Amino acid sequence: MFTGTLALLVQHLKKLPGIGNKSARRMAMHLIRMNKAEAIALAESIKTAVEKYRNCSVCNLLSEDDPCQFCRAPNRRDDLLCIVENTQDVYLIEETNEFNGRYFVLSNLLSPIDGIGPDQINFPALCEYLRQHQVKEIILALNPSAEGESTINFLAAELATEIGKITRLSTGIPFGGDIEYTTSITLGNALKRRYKVNDQ
Amino acid sequence: MFTGTLALLVQHLKKLPGIGNKSARRMAMHLIRMNKAEAIALAESIKTAVEKYRNCSVCNLLSEDDPCQFCRAPNRRDDLLCIVENTQDVYLIEETNEFNGRYFVLSNLLSPIDGIGPDQINFPALCEYLRQHQVKEIILALNPSAEGESTINFLAAELATEIGKITRLSTGIPFGGDIEYTTSITLGNALKRRYKVNDQ
Repeated sequence: MFTGTLALLVQHLKKLPGIGNKSARRMAMHLIRMNKAEAIALAESIKTAVEKYRNCSVCNLLSEDDPCQFCRAPNRRDDLLCIVENTQDVYLIEETNEFNGRYFVLSNLLSPIDGIGPDQINFPALCEYLRQHQVKEIILALNPSAEGESTINFLAAELATEIGKITRLSTGIPFGGDIEYTTSITLGNALKRRYKVNDQ
Repeated sequence: MFTGTLALLVQHLKKLPGIGNKSARRMAMHLIRMNKAEAIALAESIKTAVEKYRNCSVCNLLSEDDPCQFCRAPNRRDDLLCIVENTQDVYLIEETNEFNGRYFVLSNLLSPIDGIGPDQINFPALCEYLRQHQVKEIILALNPSAEGESTINFLAAELATEIGKITRLSTGIPFGGDIEYTTSITLGNALKRRYKVNDQ
């Protein structure tokens, strides 16, 4: 029932993450109904961002600058490298205020079934990074999914001889979560990785 | 942590309906990562739609044409008028294939607390429409919310002398719904408006 320009806009909006047919229509309607200047500002802002952002030549993060703010920062530890799947994860980790090292962005996780091998997860660039920087610990901050696990296993095996300490994020019950609603694989993990509370 | 162009894009995206901070960030990230030509096509498509759509001078629907496709259609009943809150609702009603009359779009529902009175729901334009068209039945296809109910009551009272038949959408348990998960107000409504099944 949506025709012409509006149908085209709906098609384009559906390419955004998590936007299906119904949300796309709702957005399109909202856009043609909202303040015209604001809608045009949104469109311009998409174009500017798309033009300006590129991958940092050092760590592969999507950034307006090259090298990116994290690679340039003088007060970050060079010997601690956090490997993440994508740029978004970097911002989430930054928000925790728990990390003060450098980052490296893979852009993908290993998935042989989708044709994603070591070359597609920026492994050659990671090796190059490690040749040029004195990294003592690597944190593999990847999702505990099938693809994440195989990427963790692959990187841990490949880098074991060069890097003294390779760690991954702890798995367990999320803070504020409920044992009753935790899957048995997560609960099993939480049991296996239980830690002492009566000493530090 | 999002800075510069990206922070600006997030601000703009948050103006879309149902998009909070997290979704806006996810979208912004997706946009700068996706195929550049596609992202620019999306931006252009927003601008084109915003430029082209305006309110139909007859029924107030947002449309590329004036009069809109529904006001122009020769095979629709002129004596049956469906009053809706917004353009989107027209498309949803069209999809049911249960209606073949004309439409009138209010753009708002009455809400004195938000300063939305009869002038803001296009009531003068509706009166003008009714002067120029021979309408026998008005269907008030408005949400069964507080604002919807007061708009229904207002319009029914104002138009009672001119229009022979004023109806509203039935309320009750949604098709495929479950009595167990229905609120008691809906269930009470469904009981009050129960209908016979052993004859037509």
